[in-house]
Amino acid sequence: MSGEPPDMTRMACPSPLAHHERIVLGHGGGGVLTRELIEKVFLSAFGNPILAGLGDSGILPAAWFSSGGGERLAFSTDSFVVQPLVFPGGSIGSLAVNGTVNDLAMSGARPMALSAAFILEEGLDVGLLVRIVADMAEAARMAGVGIVTGDTKVVERGRGDGLSITTAGIGLVPADLRLGSRPPEPGDVILVSGTVGDHGMAVMSVREGLGFEAPIESDSAALHGLVADLLAACPDVSLLRDPTRGGLAMTLGELVAGKGFGIEFDEGAVPVDPVVAAACEILGLDPLQVANEGKLVAVVPEAGAEAALAALRAHPLGGKAARIGRMVADHPGLVVARTPYGGTRIVPMPLGEQLPRIC
Amino acid sequence: MSGEPPDMTRMACPSPLAHHERIVLGHGGGGVLTRELIEKVFLSAFGNPILAGLGDSGILPAAWFSSGGGERLAFSTDSFVVQPLVFPGGSIGSLAVNGTVNDLAMSGARPMALSAAFILEEGLDVGLLVRIVADMAEAARMAGVGIVTGDTKVVERGRGDGLSITTAGIGLVPADLRLGSRPPEPGDVILVSGTVGDHGMAVMSVREGLGFEAPIESDSAALHGLVADLLAACPDVSLLRDPTRGGLAMTLGELVAGKGFGIEFDEGAVPVDPVVAAACEILGLDPLQVANEGKLVAVVPEAGAEAALAALRAHPLGGKAARIGRMVADHPGLVVARTPYGGTRIVPMPLGEQLPRIC
Repeated sequence: MSGEPPDMTRMACPSPLAHHERIVLGHGGGGVLTRELIEKVFLSAFGNPILAGLGDSGILPAAWFSSGGGERLAFSTDSFVVQPLVFPGGSIGSLAVNGTVNDLAMSGARPMALSAAFILEEGLDVGLLVRIVADMAEAARMAGVGIVTGDTKVVERGRGDGLSITTAGIGLVPADLRLGSRPPEPGDVILVSGTVGDHGMAVMSVREGLGFEAPIESDSAALHGLVADLLAACPDVSLLRDPTRGGLAMTLGELVAGKGFGIEFDEGAVPVDPVVAAACEILGLDPLQVANEGKLVAVVPEAGAEAALAALRAHPLGGKAARIGRMVADHPGLVVARTPYGGTRIVPMPLGEQLPRIC
Repeated sequence: MSGEPPDMTRMACPSPLAHHERIVLGHGGGGVLTRELIEKVFLSAFGNPILAGLGDSGILPAAWFSSGGGERLAFSTDSFVVQPLVFPGGSIGSLAVNGTVNDLAMSGARPMALSAAFILEEGLDVGLLVRIVADMAEAARMAGVGIVTGDTKVVERGRGDGLSITTAGIGLVPADLRLGSRPPEPGDVILVSGTVGDHGMAVMSVREGLGFEAPIESDSAALHGLVADLLAACPDVSLLRDPTRGGLAMTLGELVAGKGFGIEFDEGAVPVDPVVAAACEILGLDPLQVANEGKLVAVVPEAGAEAALAALRAHPLGGKAARIGRMVADHPGLVVARTPYGGTRIVPMPLGEQLPRIC
């Protein structure tokens, strides 16, 4: 362990506002200052014809979604309150885009459009806001999704925490989607798409001032491309989840809570980056409970498991995918890990907040 | 002026949580406490099959929107940070539903579904949250729209301000909608659907401790029914806006900003409740700049103006609708008011924040 945690304050951009380096209450008043903020900061970054209309709603053309094939709409939302606002591998901006895109992707939906609502604290550095908005724009571009409508509010100094962002997303669920049509059952195989705990430990290592030779980077990424490849290889996936807050332990726990089956998995088979493992050790955290922002858990039938795993591994976001365990008829409702030392332990759902403000 | 401002703290409900009267950080951790909060507070209030699935997205059935008629989707979002959280005539909960419904309605869309994302401050009274969530559920029921997906985050005490809510909404824009197909032009008539300034002064009178014989009530209401009646009577409405933050002055200013025409209106024709006018007088505020949450401004062709006005007045939310002025070729870009004393004045767009945290 060496080096310094990165200084994120260096990463702000110059303020494009005529008279303000910092956010003032008037930027939330709905008047001329709000207009300037929207035009100079948000429109210039997200610019697309739907948003630029600045109507009360973004209007999505009928051709985007009515192929007449009986598609359904997926609709999702997430608020983001991560601290610090910028961290290795991302920022609250990229997280706000990828997080909602991933919620849609886990439903098998193709993301179509996002909304973005900002609550700014009086005194927020405008350049930092610009840099975060640029991250959002880049994440949206990479995910192939437009930010088509938005809102901005400002709260007094001391009544917020710099910046929170809430995104909502609309996605199109293909009429022939088979994901979820067959509920999970004993014998099904559990796959994870890569190393766990990266996002949470990237944020925590900045917050706790841990410096490593190579900083831990958040895995924040949009997963709908990975999901598309997975479903092409194995259409009968029973269930997809992204293990964010509460980590893999929470996701597995929710899969069996109140159900007539359990989960058995091999703790040594769960991919964990060695630096993340070391950071968890230092902070006394269990990587299974640490948040991910670019990983998925798939429950697949045994017959399709090898094809599914191969598809995950062939994608740039799934190179370290692994088969970690299966659904079992024993111990219904419980998640049981086989430890690397040959024992077993029950993995509880985390009760509350191991890592506050992680997303 | 007499009486006491209402004591909003009396209005909390009992906490339905097993061990908590107040929100703790763990309620945002994505673990068991988050689950309990979602199930006992949110699901029990908003309960509908789409939300109850608790998937990463709410899935809207194809039949809701694909009549094959070339409809478009309207998509909108708003964050709500009003203080106090509860005020005469509503709360942040009803506001969060009606505000987004109205953004959709102003686009001529029929609201279909809402998302709701909550940022809770550690220490928030759970009973107060329950009461606010009940307001949301009731507003959604009255508006005929489901809350189908959501999210909850918790921030540390002192890093938020009790509660903020961000809603997003999806609405269906009929294929044959004529609203907006004809841009506003000189000669068009400007209608408002009722008294202005009610919402802002309801909030301010609580905040400033102003007590009146009859408390000023917020006008918070869902306007899509009023819009439907208006468009049935006068399909060629040029433009609809809800004059929220910045009030009527901002809305009129935006109508002509950068355009080749201006607005002339009769200040005496703008409906203002006498108690609201008195409160504005006391606080030195201009009712034209005060926020509304249940009013609309319509720009209509002269030929349809009487029918449009009659349709507004026939609706329970438009009883005090009035014709206040028109678009004119003179003074392009400017809004000019004829005062009750026979003079004229230019009405500027408010610069920033006359009334912070009003919605």
